[in-house]
This record gives sequence, structure tokens and C-alpha cells, in this order.
Amino acid sequence: MMQKILSVRTDVREGLYDITEEVKKVVTESRVVTGTVSVYVQGATAAIMIQENWDDSVQRDVINLLGRLIPKGVWEHDRQDGNADAHLKAGLVGPGEVIPIVNGKMGLSTWQNIFLCEFDGPRGMRKIVVTVTA
Amino acid sequence: MMQKILSVRTDVREGLYDITEEVKKVVTESRVVTGTVSVYVQGATAAIMIQENWDDSVQRDVINLLGRLIPKGVWEHDRQDGNADAHLKAGLVGPGEVIPIVNGKMGLSTWQNIFLCEFDGPRGMRKIVVTVTA
Amino acid sequence: MMQKILSVRTDVREGLYDITEEVKKVVTESRVVTGTVSVYVQGATAAIMIQENWDDSVQRDVINLLGRLIPKGVWEHDRQDGNADAHLKAGLVGPGEVIPIVNGKMGLSTWQNIFLCEFDGPRGMRKIVVTVTA
Repeated sequence: MMQKILSVRTDVREGLYDITEEVKKVVTESRVVTGTVSVYVQGATAAIMIQENWDDSVQRDVINLLGRLIPKGVWEHDRQDGNADAHLKAGLVGPGEVIPIVNGKMGLSTWQNIFLCEFDGPRGMRKIVVTVTA
Repeated sequence: MMQKILSVRTDVREGLYDITEEVKKVVTESRVVTGTVSVYVQGATAAIMIQENWDDSVQRDVINLLGRLIPKGVWEHDRQDGNADAHLKAGLVGPGEVIPIVNGKMGLSTWQNIFLCEFDGPRGMRKIVVTVTA
Repeated sequence: MMQKILSVRTDVREGLYDITEEVKKVVTESRVVTGTVSVYVQGATAAIMIQENWDDSVQRDVINLLGRLIPKGVWEHDRQDGNADAHLKAGLVGPGEVIPIVNGKMGLSTWQNIFLCEFDGPRGMRKIVVTVTA
């Protein structure tokens, strides 16, 4: 068992941030050979998504898709603080993923990377809890 | 390792039910300081979502959103038992979330709560399996 | 702790494949009584979904729903390799689920089965990492 909290700064209202390398460091440091790693973002307007990182286009497509499915300004919560779309996107994508550890490394395939999804930035600090279980 | 099964009664066809306090009790009782807790709902027409609980509006917005994305009565399975939309909503949101335990408490942020999503109620008993791993 | 990698062949571009029995075998072999099992598919165009298996109709409804929400050919990434819809579907559904183990068996309800979702097949081999934690 090992746990670290990562901090990520975001610089746009909506965007994906690749955190694979930071999670990899925690897994390597844990020396766990077989197990799982839980990646969980705090805050009700962000999410974690496993997605391709071959080029940047899919990341922009994710934001575009969610904007089509979940438009801004038409929800009841928008009368409270105007960011209902961000909460709905975060809830649908979900705050966490659990990734297996195989032979001491994360069992991601070549094109699978781990992304923080920011839906209500920019934020000075998004906290991501990384927990390795053996 | 500790496991408990929670029972929740639902009183509407579709709605969100905050189960954070019940999960918190299991985590406290487990005395685990660093680890994870898996929250999993049984039944193919319910789901678990992490969502804001500042007011009730986001919860109604979630039901409204899913109703827009997944209308009733237009699916092949509706010819069998008329609740295809509930199965599709449950599958898309997903039956479980894994939440880190940090310093003996769930690593939720201030506004993140754990909700049971009922899509085909009312039901006398929804069973939720809570498993703490150290 | 026990880990196995399952191989599944897919024979259509988009479809759901029931892998519950294969996962069950790993759980039984692990002899874990109380714990969790993580099911994770490698590859950025596939996903894991818990869904009803009473008949095949819901499985076709899932593919139909995702095709409505995420049309083909309209995304930026389609200019790269034409399968943006598959990446978006995979990211939204997600590559993994964590299922509790209760009294030596997976804590699925009667109608909950585990499905591999193929969004860019046919593929000779989809690898699914199954990790049991006690």
C-alpha cells in the first residue's frame, strides 16, 4: 500500500491534461509487482478518463462531444452558480479509474494514457489521490 | 479488509439518494488509515455516481440530462419489459466507484458526495456492497 | 492477490461480449472469500460495461444508443485515422470495473453480467487484465 497526492494546475475552462508520467512515478516508487492503482480526482467539476494520446485531436474531441451532449446554461443548478454543465460532465465521466499493475508496470496499452479532465478551470491546484494496492 | 452490505429503499422511479454517511460509517469502523473503499450497487437498473450535494438541483439535473440523452420507449428491449432506458442509464453511469481512504477518512472533497442512482424504482431494497481494502 | 490476462476475439466492428464466466473462473481459482476483482481492458477503442444479460436486446440497444450520441466521421481525430467515435465511446464508458467478492463469489446480482464492449473490431485478440485483491 502506497499513497501520494498529485497537484495539477489547469489553465483553461475545459481541457484534458495527461498525468500518466506522474502516476507512473508513484507506481515505480511503490515497487509493487502485481496489483492495482486507483487514480481519483477531488472536486466535483473534474474527472479522470483513460484515452488515446497519439495526437491532441481526441482530447479536443472529448471536450467537443461533452459540450454537445451537455450544453451550458439550461440546467436548474445554473441558477445557483452557473456551472451545472461542469458537474454533469464530471459525474458522467466519473472521478476515478483503477488500473492494473502487471510485472511492476501499469497495464496500459500503447495508446492508453491517463487524463485529468478539467470542466471548470482554470484552477491553481487540482488534487489527485493515487493509491497503489498490492 | 472489511465488507458490509447496505440496504436502501427508493420511493420514486428515478432519483439520486445520498449514501455518503452510510459508507463513512463502514470506513470508520474498518479503522483503515490508508487504502480504498469500493462502493458497488447490485441490480442492472441502478448506478453509483459521485456528485455535488450543495443543493438538490444537480441531482434533478442528472435525471433530466439522462432522460434527454436516453429517451423512454424507443429501444428494442422495451418490447421485452419496457425499462430499456433504465438499463442503458445504469450501464453508462456504471454500478461502482472506488474512493481512496486518506488519513482514516474518505478522500472526498468538500462538495463530493456518493449517490445511489435509481432508474427503475420504487424498490423496497437496493443492496450496495461496500468493501474496504487496506 | 491473483492476476490473469484473458484473451477475447471479436468478430464485428461494434458489439458486446459476455466475459462473466471467464472472470468467474479467475475468482474461483483465487480462493479469495472477501475482496474485489478489477476487470480492465487494454486498447483505447474498447470498454467494460456491467449490463443485463436476460436477452440480447439490451446489448444491441447499447450499441445503438452510443451510435446516436457519438456519430461517426464528424470529429477532428477522424482526419487522422477515422475511428474517433470508437475512442470517444471507449473513454465515456471506461476501460474497467471493480466488482466486490462476497462469500467467495462475485457480488453481481442475478441480471448483472460483465461485458467487453468492442467499438473498433474485429480484433484477433482483446486483452483483459483480471486482478483479484483480498
